Amino acid sequence: MKKLINKADDVTAEQLHGLGLAHLDIEVHHDPAFVSVVGGAKDRVAVISGGGSGHEPLHGGFVGMGMLDAACPGQVFTSPTPDQMYAAAKEVAGEKGVLQIVKNYTGDVLNFQMAADMLRDDGISMRNIIIDDDVALKDSLYTAGRRGLGTTIIAEKVCGAAAREGYDLDQMAALCRKVNLYGKSMGVALTSCTTPQNGKPSFELGADEIEIGIGIHGEPGVERIKIKTADEVTEILADHIFEDEAYTRKLSEWDSAKGDWVDSEVTDITFSSGDEAIAIVNGMGGTPVSELYTVYAKLAEIAGRHGVKIIRNLVGNYITSLEMAGCSLTLVKVDDEILRLYDAPVNTPALRWGV
Amino acid sequence: MKKLINKADDVTAEQLHGLGLAHLDIEVHHDPAFVSVVGGAKDRVAVISGGGSGHEPLHGGFVGMGMLDAACPGQVFTSPTPDQMYAAAKEVAGEKGVLQIVKNYTGDVLNFQMAADMLRDDGISMRNIIIDDDVALKDSLYTAGRRGLGTTIIAEKVCGAAAREGYDLDQMAALCRKVNLYGKSMGVALTSCTTPQNGKPSFELGADEIEIGIGIHGEPGVERIKIKTADEVTEILADHIFEDEAYTRKLSEWDSAKGDWVDSEVTDITFSSGDEAIAIVNGMGGTPVSELYTVYAKLAEIAGRHGVKIIRNLVGNYITSLEMAGCSLTLVKVDDEILRLYDAPVNTPALRWGV
Repeated sequence: MKKLINKADDVTAEQLHGLGLAHLDIEVHHDPAFVSVVGGAKDRVAVISGGGSGHEPLHGGFVGMGMLDAACPGQVFTSPTPDQMYAAAKEVAGEKGVLQIVKNYTGDVLNFQMAADMLRDDGISMRNIIIDDDVALKDSLYTAGRRGLGTTIIAEKVCGAAAREGYDLDQMAALCRKVNLYGKSMGVALTSCTTPQNGKPSFELGADEIEIGIGIHGEPGVERIKIKTADEVTEILADHIFEDEAYTRKLSEWDSAKGDWVDSEVTDITFSSGDEAIAIVNGMGGTPVSELYTVYAKLAEIAGRHGVKIIRNLVGNYITSLEMAGCSLTLVKVDDEILRLYDAPVNTPALRWGV
Repeated sequence: MKKLINKADDVTAEQLHGLGLAHLDIEVHHDPAFVSVVGGAKDRVAVISGGGSGHEPLHGGFVGMGMLDAACPGQVFTSPTPDQMYAAAKEVAGEKGVLQIVKNYTGDVLNFQMAADMLRDDGISMRNIIIDDDVALKDSLYTAGRRGLGTTIIAEKVCGAAAREGYDLDQMAALCRKVNLYGKSMGVALTSCTTPQNGKPSFELGADEIEIGIGIHGEPGVERIKIKTADEVTEILADHIFEDEAYTRKLSEWDSAKGDWVDSEVTDITFSSGDEAIAIVNGMGGTPVSELYTVYAKLAEIAGRHGVKIIRNLVGNYITSLEMAGCSLTLVKVDDEILRLYDAPVNTPALRWGV
């Protein structure tokens, strides 16, 4: 294992320390660990997310003006604990409450739920919305239902902007749910990755093999195939996204107004001709951005073939798996509301425009 | 070799194609290949750079409002040809002429000089300024004198802003020379990298070895040592930067006013207590940004020990070596002029703020 780290047990704390030093408008807290915007979100709905480390810049790199108010990082590939979300909410939330954006991994979902229960006792309103946009699998190693992938980034961006526009908690929850249902993602791994704790690759992949539909913790995907060209790989991933049928599932959402957990039945979209979309061509950490642009060119061509126009894009490392080589594609359909909020100013370590 | 590419011979053209599709305010030209801002730079001094591909986002990712007007990419790790710079200048330049920012690699320097000669015959004023900020070595495999590294990015940013402020060509040349003399860089490789053409690692590095002072083409550095902690590696790199003595050398600059090449004798700075600086903690392509923040924390501590205050920073992949793991540190001393121009709005694929 060759990494720029000190002690395997300290990697998350040390990275957060550097993040806080580099970006003076975000604050890093330890014990419990979370990252928050200086000044909190007292005058608006607070937006909080989190999850295992190892996916940077997600989520700490998206804390800042116009996006997340706080992020709770677990250890590498490990869910954060409820006390982290609880402390983060106590730090940043005001009377307008908290929207928790939660990627659909079993540990994350349970721990964010426990945090919501703790916050209820403190009288802090909370809604939590699950992101489950990965079209690869319906169930997997770490997840009941679909996993959360790149749509999370768009949800965080759009909801952060909505909070600044004065959306209330119900409106924020509805918006976040809509973004999730408008987004579909699919990834591929060219190599494995190594957690500092284990020191060995999380899984084995042959020298000429790639894994389609990989999870961000290296959990198994849809199929393992021989390496193909960038165009062929992009076709495979994009086909899964464009051919994915509307998917109806129950998602458990905490609803402060009802004072209880509610199973909401939701159905996502399928892409159809005339749609406009935001595309993310996301690197898994070890793939050069130059290769991602080759993938983007093919994705844009395929989208055009389906009558879908990509009107905004992010090409780079946004939701990674340590130093894994590979990429994931995300397409999120946009309407006027999503586009307006996406284009609003943002100032975070990993996304910045308009300021 | 596992890469998201199609044909090894087409990688540069295909990546540029994707870049142009993703960013509608930049145009991609083929035969000869270059990237330019839509609308050119007719009303201001044009800023042009270029070099081998494989270092993305450098340089194509820095084309756009407030930074480069054009970039000329060679094949992977190969200098661009003079006809590329010539065509780029013809495309974007107006009466105020062209500043060429050239990293100090022998092939790049010669070919940018040939382009200057061709442009002279067309009556286009040109100044070329060499960036040679890598403190690792005085001479190396691809270079007479020091190599060009991360200071190039700050030079491109600052000069792009200066052009929009109305600087004339002489002022631009003086500014670019100053930035070069205010900047020092040093890198480390944890792994090798593989060019698409060769299909095999450019050099061998043992499973527990790292190379200090590596070049961006994998050319040899200062020493090969056993892997150390992030803190120790950062200390080694930073020591080279902070202990580097003022270095006097002759740089060949084309001067339109004199109608000839002039060997300018220049001396760079040493950092001293009270200095303010921009820091880049640059990933070589295959190192997660999380590790770079661990490095940043240590760099900030070391800089503080020397009385140098880092007042701006970039932490991420900016000047890479394909999928190489490792990083380079760049420190550029700032004065009021450099800081004002650095903070000015920029809108490029890889750097964006203020718009």
